[in-house]
Amino acid sequence: MENIAELCRKAQTASRQTALLSTAQKNKLLAEMAVKLNAHRADIMEANATDVKAAQDKGLAAALIDRLTLTSARFAEMVAGVEQVAALPDPVGRSYDGRITPYGLNIVKYRVPLGVIGVIYEARPNVTADIAALCLKSGNACVLRGGKEAICTNLAIYQALREALLKQGIDPAAITFIKRTDRESVEELLKQDAYLDVIVPRGGEALHRFCQQHSAIPVIVGGFGVSHIYAAPSADIAKAVPLIINAKVQKPAACNALDTLLIATPLLEPLCTRLAAPLAKHQVKVHAHGRCFDVLQQLHYPYLCAGVAEDFDTEWLSLTLNIAPVANVQQAAAHLQAHHAQHSDAILSNDLAEIDFFVRRAGSACVYVNASTRFTDGGQFGLGAEVAISTQKLHARGPMALEELTTYQYVCRGDYLCRS
Amino acid sequence: MENIAELCRKAQTASRQTALLSTAQKNKLLAEMAVKLNAHRADIMEANATDVKAAQDKGLAAALIDRLTLTSARFAEMVAGVEQVAALPDPVGRSYDGRITPYGLNIVKYRVPLGVIGVIYEARPNVTADIAALCLKSGNACVLRGGKEAICTNLAIYQALREALLKQGIDPAAITFIKRTDRESVEELLKQDAYLDVIVPRGGEALHRFCQQHSAIPVIVGGFGVSHIYAAPSADIAKAVPLIINAKVQKPAACNALDTLLIATPLLEPLCTRLAAPLAKHQVKVHAHGRCFDVLQQLHYPYLCAGVAEDFDTEWLSLTLNIAPVANVQQAAAHLQAHHAQHSDAILSNDLAEIDFFVRRAGSACVYVNASTRFTDGGQFGLGAEVAISTQKLHARGPMALEELTTYQYVCRGDYLCRS
Repeated sequence: MENIAELCRKAQTASRQTALLSTAQKNKLLAEMAVKLNAHRADIMEANATDVKAAQDKGLAAALIDRLTLTSARFAEMVAGVEQVAALPDPVGRSYDGRITPYGLNIVKYRVPLGVIGVIYEARPNVTADIAALCLKSGNACVLRGGKEAICTNLAIYQALREALLKQGIDPAAITFIKRTDRESVEELLKQDAYLDVIVPRGGEALHRFCQQHSAIPVIVGGFGVSHIYAAPSADIAKAVPLIINAKVQKPAACNALDTLLIATPLLEPLCTRLAAPLAKHQVKVHAHGRCFDVLQQLHYPYLCAGVAEDFDTEWLSLTLNIAPVANVQQAAAHLQAHHAQHSDAILSNDLAEIDFFVRRAGSACVYVNASTRFTDGGQFGLGAEVAISTQKLHARGPMALEELTTYQYVCRGDYLCRS
Repeated sequence: MENIAELCRKAQTASRQTALLSTAQKNKLLAEMAVKLNAHRADIMEANATDVKAAQDKGLAAALIDRLTLTSARFAEMVAGVEQVAALPDPVGRSYDGRITPYGLNIVKYRVPLGVIGVIYEARPNVTADIAALCLKSGNACVLRGGKEAICTNLAIYQALREALLKQGIDPAAITFIKRTDRESVEELLKQDAYLDVIVPRGGEALHRFCQQHSAIPVIVGGFGVSHIYAAPSADIAKAVPLIINAKVQKPAACNALDTLLIATPLLEPLCTRLAAPLAKHQVKVHAHGRCFDVLQQLHYPYLCAGVAEDFDTEWLSLTLNIAPVANVQQAAAHLQAHHAQHSDAILSNDLAEIDFFVRRAGSACVYVNASTRFTDGGQFGLGAEVAISTQKLHARGPMALEELTTYQYVCRGDYLCRS
């Protein structure tokens, strides 16, 4: 059986080499990773077919089988993703906050790699290549532990990446893949605080909670949360309608898709009247709360049900939407605070004081003013690819990209300076 | 018995008020805290006498009783500390990294308070006032859990701080003090991830490890580590001697005091010859390794003992020092990597290539070039007071001050912008 502590120790040793690679060396490595992935295309696709067949035989859910399946388009996207990371700016080595203290000490902060990134993920096999590219570009080693459903695909992808490391003369432990898929292997991994610097879970809320409860290593918790839009009395109804539809239907399975629409009382009837047709067109099931139910019933909204209290704590990840009336921005902000808004929330308003009130109280990683919650994304933010969307407050908040895969080091120079 | 979850929930509610306080309001609060501490001086000193008496009766160690004792000078320092924090710049509200994306989204990052800071500390009673001032100045609420040895003093200080909150019309739960001193109260506190945003342990390594292993809340680990100085062949011996003495003796109980001196072979005899007298003057016990033992023996060094392997992993916190020869900077860097250098380490050298080699491999939060390790300190760095010295890599590294008690929030504005 694999000795996970020993694998992590070797990854730490490799991280001392990757931390010192130049940007040119790292870009060359990533280019080689793309080449090797293409060279192994047939093996990888065959391994994926094996995984998909096994999942079908086990009768796993269609959504999971879809996430697991590596189509030709997804394979091409995965390779393009690695090439795109190569093209991103290198976060390592940037100096900032330089100063000379009154005692004559010359202090500078430098961005340096975190060290070893542990990533625990579920069925999406593209994560193996995505994360490896991001970790290596930022000078880190990584220890990857993928889900058992994708084990054949992951191993085939890992083999290709390993060849790229060897070809470039880099310690292959820089990308360490844990072959064990038993639950104990995750628990063991979470204990390796002597070797790992951070754990990034990639998956559902249950995985995040498990890591948070069991890890001795700092964990980046994120990727889920109830998203809200508050439509204020001064919102422009004509412009608000397409925005709300965008937030709900553009990619309903995304963590930044709208879950709860709060409508200021004066706007309830006019906005619902304008929303009913486009929502119905996309077959959005509405959980209507309070007076909103009557309004939508009078409009003969076809996918209507009466909302219950628990709806407000549910991340739908599907074409379902809570709609509820609120008296004012105070009530809207109180609703957000009570219902774990930590991810992406928006206010639609043309009133500056009200906008300020909302923004300062929303508590979300990303607060939007007259913009769709769907923008919470490393690519949309101009950060390149992301490792995760953090909903915690330490270290990384919102899209976690290359910069957040680094830390800083103080370098302090003097002329044989003593502290007095 | 106190319900810790309920206390933490109330602190979270209070944190929503403190997050919105203006700089002027926060400074007024801190000034009032100093006033109330002075007003309660007699109660606090009396309570401290009770704690000290109990500690003496229990026969606790002299060092612990010293840490526990609030002398007149220490009381004045504690009050002055609160006033100094009031004078520091407010980290909240600073905006940075503003940009407009190609899609027209206007993105800005703002510094915002972390929320609720949980602090678990041991015998030093001044921590109650220090931490409360730092947390409030950065717009956070705090939940404090002090050691049982200082419980009477802590309660008296807490009463004074509470009066200041009430006087300023601030929810008193903004400073929440846990009166329970049983071990279970710490375990319970570490589970309150629904309400607390970070745990800062203030104490020995055992406390840090306990929090790291048992906390579902992110923990800032730090405050300990083996500190090294590597004296390279090109080091200026005359200037190196006072620096090494400074790093070792200026405050031997500090976490940034020198533990291990690595001397490049060509420098071994000349440097030891010059160091012997000043080290002996301060009665520094030397654990001499390898050929260093013979050299110091020939010099008749009075406090000499033969070093053993475990010395290199020991943080002395006293007038003890390892001295060991190393062949070159490669061996010095390898020694640091093998012996958990994560705090403060220095190279003494006039060779730029060698300095660069060392700095890039040291792995310490603070690396010094020709400067004493004793500078690792929020005050010395110009950051004001510090909450902790972090030796982990996430969020805060090195001195953790007001800025690191905040996080950022993305605020994104558009003209009813949809994602395409």
